[in-house]
Amino acid sequence: MSDYIKVPHLIEERSFEMITEELGDKTFPEEIGKIIKRVIHTTADFQYADITIISPTAIEFAKKALKAGAHIVTDTKMAMAGINKKRLESYGGEVNCFISDEDVAKAAKEKGTTRAMAAMEKAIMDEKNKIFVIGNAPTALFKLKQFIEEGKVKPDLVIGVPVGFVGAAESKEEFEKLDVPYIVTRGRKGGSTVAAAIVNAIMYML
Amino acid sequence: MSDYIKVPHLIEERSFEMITEELGDKTFPEEIGKIIKRVIHTTADFQYADITIISPTAIEFAKKALKAGAHIVTDTKMAMAGINKKRLESYGGEVNCFISDEDVAKAAKEKGTTRAMAAMEKAIMDEKNKIFVIGNAPTALFKLKQFIEEGKVKPDLVIGVPVGFVGAAESKEEFEKLDVPYIVTRGRKGGSTVAAAIVNAIMYML
Repeated sequence: MSDYIKVPHLIEERSFEMITEELGDKTFPEEIGKIIKRVIHTTADFQYADITIISPTAIEFAKKALKAGAHIVTDTKMAMAGINKKRLESYGGEVNCFISDEDVAKAAKEKGTTRAMAAMEKAIMDEKNKIFVIGNAPTALFKLKQFIEEGKVKPDLVIGVPVGFVGAAESKEEFEKLDVPYIVTRGRKGGSTVAAAIVNAIMYML
Repeated sequence: MSDYIKVPHLIEERSFEMITEELGDKTFPEEIGKIIKRVIHTTADFQYADITIISPTAIEFAKKALKAGAHIVTDTKMAMAGINKKRLESYGGEVNCFISDEDVAKAAKEKGTTRAMAAMEKAIMDEKNKIFVIGNAPTALFKLKQFIEEGKVKPDLVIGVPVGFVGAAESKEEFEKLDVPYIVTRGRKGGSTVAAAIVNAIMYML
């Protein structure tokens, strides 16, 4: 084990240099590049350079919301675990995930839907929740789209990166049609680590 | 949104069917297939069919350990969050992650190492910790290898799937030389979601 790889900030610095080198001709506007490179750093998967779509206003809205202490809602405990809470709390924000709440489980059972959908229904009740982070459940993203269309919620950013084979690609494709600040990963790929990496990348710009 | 994609167990069932179909000629012994397919399910990345290496005794040792109530240690809160705790607790097991412990932060600072290394040093002190799950930090995997070689710990399974550009591939390549039950992902890819998916896949066999 070489010596330098025990020093955390050097590991990260060198990783980003390698990513930039390997991206070669693929260059991005600075802030978009920061997001895409952090996702690649998290996945070691360069395909994210092509499938990560950031709506024009997404970064500005998200930065403003974070600085104002916006709350974040995630669809999984994993995504929540990956978000830099110390940083988020320094702006007065917090992150919540309602998927394991008893009232959510009960509502899902009664309505015959997923807990992810019921969790979104709970999330929109609190207007401090301005940033929605969905890394796992296409049903959560479908539900959130419906609430936005119905005017029930107006997020400052939706990170829609559910991963998987059934519904994930479709949920993101549909979501891109909305006039709302979003970041999605087209196709099947995504996940909780990708979702958290995007949140952190935006916070590290502040 | 079609109706079936709101029913969680049907989503999973259909996903695994699609993965099996798309793997085509690539077939695996049953239990190995269950692990690989769950990793693909989690990442939507078929490359894991080629890079996921399972040592001959890994699954049997892990199953036996889990049934006996083995404790699991992870290198990140994210991997911990992704493990099915209800299932694990039903065998008398538990999962811990020491990365954010104050004594770990202090030890890392004093020794000029990563917190991930110091967390492994803490983990091996408790002999109930029999399964080590490393999805993020190559330094944790290097350290664990050292402890195994020194005879300080004898894990029933090491899931070594750190992701990244600096040290990740090397840490896994070195680890494969050990005579210990392991599951690794060769090269740069891996991560906390992959790590948790492997643990869950093995538990779902029991």
